[in-house]
Amino acid sequence: MKKAILIIQYKDQKGIVAAVSQFLFRYEGNILEVDQHVDEELGMFFMRAAWELESFSISKESIKQKFEEEVAGKFGMDFRLHFNFPKPRMALFVSKLSHCLFDILGRHHAGQLEMDIPLVVSNHPDLRLVVESFGIKYEHIPVNNSNKEEAEAKQLELLEENQVDFIVLARYMQILSGKLIERFPNRIINIHHSFLPAFIGAKPYHAAYERGVKIIGATAHYVTEELDAGPIIEQEVARVRHHNTISELVQIGQDVEKVVLSKAIKYHLERKVLVVKNKTVIFY
Amino acid sequence: MKKAILIIQYKDQKGIVAAVSQFLFRYEGNILEVDQHVDEELGMFFMRAAWELESFSISKESIKQKFEEEVAGKFGMDFRLHFNFPKPRMALFVSKLSHCLFDILGRHHAGQLEMDIPLVVSNHPDLRLVVESFGIKYEHIPVNNSNKEEAEAKQLELLEENQVDFIVLARYMQILSGKLIERFPNRIINIHHSFLPAFIGAKPYHAAYERGVKIIGATAHYVTEELDAGPIIEQEVARVRHHNTISELVQIGQDVEKVVLSKAIKYHLERKVLVVKNKTVIFY
Amino acid sequence: MKKAILIIQYKDQKGIVAAVSQFLFRYEGNILEVDQHVDEELGMFFMRAAWELESFSISKESIKQKFEEEVAGKFGMDFRLHFNFPKPRMALFVSKLSHCLFDILGRHHAGQLEMDIPLVVSNHPDLRLVVESFGIKYEHIPVNNSNKEEAEAKQLELLEENQVDFIVLARYMQILSGKLIERFPNRIINIHHSFLPAFIGAKPYHAAYERGVKIIGATAHYVTEELDAGPIIEQEVARVRHHNTISELVQIGQDVEKVVLSKAIKYHLERKVLVVKNKTVIFY
Amino acid sequence: MKKAILIIQYKDQKGIVAAVSQFLFRYEGNILEVDQHVDEELGMFFMRAAWELESFSISKESIKQKFEEEVAGKFGMDFRLHFNFPKPRMALFVSKLSHCLFDILGRHHAGQLEMDIPLVVSNHPDLRLVVESFGIKYEHIPVNNSNKEEAEAKQLELLEENQVDFIVLARYMQILSGKLIERFPNRIINIHHSFLPAFIGAKPYHAAYERGVKIIGATAHYVTEELDAGPIIEQEVARVRHHNTISELVQIGQDVEKVVLSKAIKYHLERKVLVVKNKTVIFY
Repeated sequence: MKKAILIIQYKDQKGIVAAVSQFLFRYEGNILEVDQHVDEELGMFFMRAAWELESFSISKESIKQKFEEEVAGKFGMDFRLHFNFPKPRMALFVSKLSHCLFDILGRHHAGQLEMDIPLVVSNHPDLRLVVESFGIKYEHIPVNNSNKEEAEAKQLELLEENQVDFIVLARYMQILSGKLIERFPNRIINIHHSFLPAFIGAKPYHAAYERGVKIIGATAHYVTEELDAGPIIEQEVARVRHHNTISELVQIGQDVEKVVLSKAIKYHLERKVLVVKNKTVIFY
Repeated sequence: MKKAILIIQYKDQKGIVAAVSQFLFRYEGNILEVDQHVDEELGMFFMRAAWELESFSISKESIKQKFEEEVAGKFGMDFRLHFNFPKPRMALFVSKLSHCLFDILGRHHAGQLEMDIPLVVSNHPDLRLVVESFGIKYEHIPVNNSNKEEAEAKQLELLEENQVDFIVLARYMQILSGKLIERFPNRIINIHHSFLPAFIGAKPYHAAYERGVKIIGATAHYVTEELDAGPIIEQEVARVRHHNTISELVQIGQDVEKVVLSKAIKYHLERKVLVVKNKTVIFY
Repeated sequence: MKKAILIIQYKDQKGIVAAVSQFLFRYEGNILEVDQHVDEELGMFFMRAAWELESFSISKESIKQKFEEEVAGKFGMDFRLHFNFPKPRMALFVSKLSHCLFDILGRHHAGQLEMDIPLVVSNHPDLRLVVESFGIKYEHIPVNNSNKEEAEAKQLELLEENQVDFIVLARYMQILSGKLIERFPNRIINIHHSFLPAFIGAKPYHAAYERGVKIIGATAHYVTEELDAGPIIEQEVARVRHHNTISELVQIGQDVEKVVLSKAIKYHLERKVLVVKNKTVIFY
Repeated sequence: MKKAILIIQYKDQKGIVAAVSQFLFRYEGNILEVDQHVDEELGMFFMRAAWELESFSISKESIKQKFEEEVAGKFGMDFRLHFNFPKPRMALFVSKLSHCLFDILGRHHAGQLEMDIPLVVSNHPDLRLVVESFGIKYEHIPVNNSNKEEAEAKQLELLEENQVDFIVLARYMQILSGKLIERFPNRIINIHHSFLPAFIGAKPYHAAYERGVKIIGATAHYVTEELDAGPIIEQEVARVRHHNTISELVQIGQDVEKVVLSKAIKYHLERKVLVVKNKTVIFY
């Protein structure tokens, strides 16, 4: 089903819901989902509305302008208008670990994720065969201390060429430069293998083991320049016990990582994630 | 904060959101929460809107008529209008088990549940002291095979006298007659100590033990004439293991019962539960 | 690491732990795991001990006889002795749904499951390519009302030829005959897509939707002749809401199915599942 | 049932299980629970065994010496011997928040916690009535910046007088001195209202709100001199959403705190918690 999705983040709510719903009603929009949220503390209003395009009496091309004229202009407010086609294009960055990669490819293959995957980028050659067996390009770009800049230039070129909309770091294990991050604001999703903000940085399962926690977790977040500090999209946890070794924590945690990352991708694809300051509003 | 809450359950959605939000905007309603849901299968539209009364330009007394004239009448639709004052009045029915009773009284005492508790009814005298120490009336009405009708007549009289709005069966262990149930449609909440529809009826923890399940649960539902078959409001579960005895299952389960029941009461109080056929829409 | 695993299920415990641990100590067994359980109700004692073979002073071939002579014989008790090599051989039965299959193959590929998969059997041709890309034989045996017996004869032949130790029904959707079940007692694991005993039989997600439950689940169990009534190995659940369609329940549920099934396989492989009457003792 | 409980934490396991179980068998101990754990990394062996005293052929008074002579002495190892009577005596330290206090008193009243509560200490007078209605002494000891030492001296005196075995800080909100902590090593349980090590220190719900986490938690741990850094006994979590205000986080979190704290008390009472370095082995 072809859908339009309208996102509003604005300082005030007075009359906006009425005006938006009036607009959609006037042009016979069959509303599929509407969600609102008011953040009293920030004095911010958030809204997401999705409706069927087929029966809508404004053509896809004219919606933006019409909405600007009839609604947004009057409030002096910004808005974003998305469509669920063409499908968003995702680049996957991976390293050697296959669990998140497999999981995403499996779900994509089963038709659960409405996106195209033109490209997998890796700093290692290991996962090439699997990726190519799904008919997806695998670009091996080695990264080391001396070639970081050059490697990233190559990555940017590939992202450009492949018209990539957003990036998923599926346990990529490399820190991206500010330049790359700025190019994809709130469009790079990372899976961190801990329940943030606990265990920021490298080797969180080791740190969890050392601290003797009884529950471990995983966190999907948008990448910002500060390490593991971007807006959290989704988190999940699993119980562990004293007899679990670090390698068992890793294995238990990987199951959590997969579920968390795929949910975050899904919310992102459906435009259900709104970022405000360093937090997310998620209309699931 | 004084609130009005509007509930709509109607066969069609076209224009309703626009009309309702226009109405609230026109009279300067400061919207606190709005939720909608469309059940495609049933062709039903559900809406709940809550707004501040203080700044609203229609007096509490006139809202109903105004909304009827300006909105509902045009759609030919029913609606319910609630206010969060005066507080709803709940009667608690208990037997000998104290865990749900204690939990509700504790939460009420801590100001978490916006209601009055004029009355606790029990078929046993055991919990009188605790209840009275909270300044609540305790009515001991013994129930046995020969006096069921009489006992219920007495209960109905007390419910009437105390202007009770809804009833919570906090492990009451007696089956209510159709007559009493009809008097409080979707206003009697029961906590059943299993993950329904598994283990309907008596001794569910024993049945769970026999079946060797790895997870047990509890279910809060509205009472209907069919045993343990009414609309489910909330469910929660807990993990158990082979070494847990029945009495351990009971203890683990009681923690779940308390949490489930108090959530169901909260949703009910906030008018967040809409019943359709034998299911609930819950706007939490 | 090469391990021996001893399993005891016996009517009495008196002195058994002492005798077993004395035996292992005498022959310098480096104990890795020991678990016991007493079922007071049944008057049954359960024990599982795993130890390193390398440093053990009895050869693999002689352990059984030695233990019989020095320990088991004195108590008149049965026992089972397993080794973690050669790896158990699993046959996977699938139909058209790929999620459990993918998940198992992915884990196997990542080295998480200590077993060989000589054979995948399916009543449909759909998943052949994926399976073969992992270097595993795919046997397409169509099943319909008229050829059930014949199809099963063919299956049994393949199981024999491939020296299969146990079978996993990864959403196979066909009911096995008593004959096949008897051939693999407590060695056929099925994943049922509900929180048993709720929603036995076909279309449990539809039934869950109809009943309006707030939590759905999945159950891995050993297959017995009574449908969905065999000993439960593992269960897990996920929360759902009123707005989830049946197809969303399916998708949410599939994530649960995968996790539950892979845990059950793991427990089975590690000989951590002991069956008593229709229940399991699981030493995880 | 009268029980003896033996706890061993020792550098090596070789032969210990055999010797202990032989000892218990020799004197006709009816074993109720035995658990072992080996920490490979630390080269440490942990064991807990519980058995019925009634049928045991050594008197309560002589067990320690006999076990020393016949087992422990040979290994040169320490051990601890406990009995489940007389009941351990717990002092509760509270401030103004009642939820954990109510929960513990409710469970104690229902017979779930095998202990005596001679004493509740508080720096505020607020909860006196509730505590006294359960027949428990309430000692109001105000604490401020100028009287800390004096207040603690008074507390220590009361703990002494009332022969207190362990202390539970049920949201006491004051930092104890090193002197008091040393007096009760691994015998002071605190409930911290976050999922440690995230959000150490004051106002963790505020911090969780600021960070935009999707899950909040609570942690029960033994108190050490470093703030919120002692060995973790139990943790649990609950899901939250963007629309939850801080006060809703508090309310959701309090339900988690109660469950976590009562589990920790239970494990402690049953001598199921073994501390090693800064971690716990928990034989539940």
